[in-house]
Amino acid sequence: MEGELLYNLHQESLALHAEHKGKIEIRSKIPIRTMHDLTLTYTPGVAEVCREIERNKDLAYKYTIKSNSVAIVTDGSAVLGLGNIGGYAAIPVMEGKAMLFKEFGNIDAFPICFEGYHTNFIDEVKNISPVFGGINLEDIAAPKCFEVEEQLQDIGIPVMHDDQHGTAVVVLAALINASRVTGKSYRDLRIAIAGAGAAGYAITRILRAIGYDPKAVVPVREVIVCDTQGIIHRKREDLMKNKYKYILAHETNPHGRKGTLSDAMMDADVFIGVSIGGIVSKEMVESMAHDPIVFAMANPVPEIMPSLAKEAGAAVIGSGRSDFPNQVNNVLAFPGIFRGALDACAIRITDKMKVAAAHALADYIPDPTADRILPPILDRGVTKAVAEAVRKTAIEEGVVRKLAE
Amino acid sequence: MEGELLYNLHQESLALHAEHKGKIEIRSKIPIRTMHDLTLTYTPGVAEVCREIERNKDLAYKYTIKSNSVAIVTDGSAVLGLGNIGGYAAIPVMEGKAMLFKEFGNIDAFPICFEGYHTNFIDEVKNISPVFGGINLEDIAAPKCFEVEEQLQDIGIPVMHDDQHGTAVVVLAALINASRVTGKSYRDLRIAIAGAGAAGYAITRILRAIGYDPKAVVPVREVIVCDTQGIIHRKREDLMKNKYKYILAHETNPHGRKGTLSDAMMDADVFIGVSIGGIVSKEMVESMAHDPIVFAMANPVPEIMPSLAKEAGAAVIGSGRSDFPNQVNNVLAFPGIFRGALDACAIRITDKMKVAAAHALADYIPDPTADRILPPILDRGVTKAVAEAVRKTAIEEGVVRKLAE
Repeated sequence: MEGELLYNLHQESLALHAEHKGKIEIRSKIPIRTMHDLTLTYTPGVAEVCREIERNKDLAYKYTIKSNSVAIVTDGSAVLGLGNIGGYAAIPVMEGKAMLFKEFGNIDAFPICFEGYHTNFIDEVKNISPVFGGINLEDIAAPKCFEVEEQLQDIGIPVMHDDQHGTAVVVLAALINASRVTGKSYRDLRIAIAGAGAAGYAITRILRAIGYDPKAVVPVREVIVCDTQGIIHRKREDLMKNKYKYILAHETNPHGRKGTLSDAMMDADVFIGVSIGGIVSKEMVESMAHDPIVFAMANPVPEIMPSLAKEAGAAVIGSGRSDFPNQVNNVLAFPGIFRGALDACAIRITDKMKVAAAHALADYIPDPTADRILPPILDRGVTKAVAEAVRKTAIEEGVVRKLAE
Repeated sequence: MEGELLYNLHQESLALHAEHKGKIEIRSKIPIRTMHDLTLTYTPGVAEVCREIERNKDLAYKYTIKSNSVAIVTDGSAVLGLGNIGGYAAIPVMEGKAMLFKEFGNIDAFPICFEGYHTNFIDEVKNISPVFGGINLEDIAAPKCFEVEEQLQDIGIPVMHDDQHGTAVVVLAALINASRVTGKSYRDLRIAIAGAGAAGYAITRILRAIGYDPKAVVPVREVIVCDTQGIIHRKREDLMKNKYKYILAHETNPHGRKGTLSDAMMDADVFIGVSIGGIVSKEMVESMAHDPIVFAMANPVPEIMPSLAKEAGAAVIGSGRSDFPNQVNNVLAFPGIFRGALDACAIRITDKMKVAAAHALADYIPDPTADRILPPILDRGVTKAVAEAVRKTAIEEGVVRKLAE
């Protein structure tokens, strides 16, 4: 986006935020008109509802907002491309996320912004969970985002770091359809990924997810991940410092290739960029295999501009931007994933649920073309399709809470 | 309330809660219709709003929900009259409270329910405060509610335990008007209080607040507080176990009276009950001074039924119930107190602000009568009057945040 356009957009956004002083509000679903309304919704009527839940906590799903509420939890450590700006500065993004949850998933999400990461962070998130039916972790820096998510998996409600899995689900869907468009076989793909942070790690792992019949996603032939030091391989000496890069080194790059991102992209079928703007040249795309697939998702400046990637011969191009075709945006995934998980009363979000979400998203485009591998993000039917696939899969897997009637 | 009526009310309340699955929802204040709406409210437009707040945290008041949001924080340890039922069973009450915040104060309040009290509770409340403009502590058992509130006073936003101060403000207002009705001089009152928990403690302390001209509330002549062991006096050996009862013993009962609640009520002008139902007999009211004032606020069964208190000669009678005149209910106070504090951008809620709230509430009834010392709780003008008094007082006291323009 050009400087002047961006300046104008920022001015307009500042004015809009100042006008509304916050983008979300709490509304009562039941009007209080009479004293009787008050005795029903508050004391003394509410006492029996409390007693019921005291007898069986699961009845919170029957009688309270828990059935439809999600905490958007951040420590403000990796907000948009702005870095570690803290819990206060993160509020506008979390409110925006809450808008999207409501608008697309009809989910009541509320921002919980911690002022930075600290020792008891994980316990503290757990401790505020009673009123929430799910937790969306947001804008938490790698590698601690992995640890936070892992340690919250068993608290009995779905917990998902959207920057990881929302992105990974949309990328997988895009890749499934891009394979269809280019006639490449998914299982033969060689993929170079730029970025080993939250998104890069989750994309890599979902690309390696296997065995989910009937529409199996098998591992692709080769995935090579690059970070700022170049290709991640098993002989790199810095890997022991970061458990998750260590895992990547052992789960990717089977031939032990070394070198830079240029080396990784040579002869690759697919480039997936979740890193920083401008790092991919025209020549690097030209060095890829025939009909290359290029997803350059750095924001707001992509790893390579879509127009330049096209000049270089890319067959299918995706980016994070709305002003080019094939916008890869997790709003296509997270509202449906949480909607489906809440509808199933799922206790967690599994790999199979994520893969099911990706298939539902890919199948939402029956006849993909180079300029249409994903639906437009304002298409309101997407969430329903994704949610239904996630709900069904959760039930099939048996990761749902059986509620007393 | 008769058993059958209560049974029916509870059934109706359960059905209503099950129908709505929660009484509050999150709404977006700005519709997302076009991609431009999305770029303004979310990325990339929101980035500049984040950067502004990163530069100056106070700008969260200008650009985010913080200017109008309140956390309703509980550990579920003293919910209604139900006792320590925990954070899950407390949700319906906290949602009801959020409804009242919105309905009466136009405040966006969200329940934060901890599953019980624990070591780091106070820090954890503080750590989630960035997105909130105020914290309403709710249904936390005495004496830890006092400590929690005290330790959160300096976090830069108003923190108030409503069970204490909401109740105390309404009782003070009621007492000011009951004094007018009975012709008793406020400063000559002798008051017996049953209950030394959250409400009893705060009522006692506000009755002793002094020197707030021009409409000074001077300390009343005598306050005697009773707990389950009888009158609290300095020679009681159990006081060292509870700092707050120790304080009460030293700030009340100047003549060192001993004995039971009956002894405390003898010749008293005022009875204030925030204890348990049925503990006051007709004879005990008959033993009071002429034209006694009786506020029997235990819920749902008052310390003495208003009809019986009347038979015993009470001149002014208040209770917590909506089916008798003079309902003492903190919904008359807390929405206005928080509204005023938020409007002033107050950094705390002071004693003077509470006394100002009580005066505004009392003055709302220009010509009080025995059956009308307080406005009906559905009167929508009350909050405005209370809020304005609180806002002004906060500014006069200088306990407000000076926001950058």
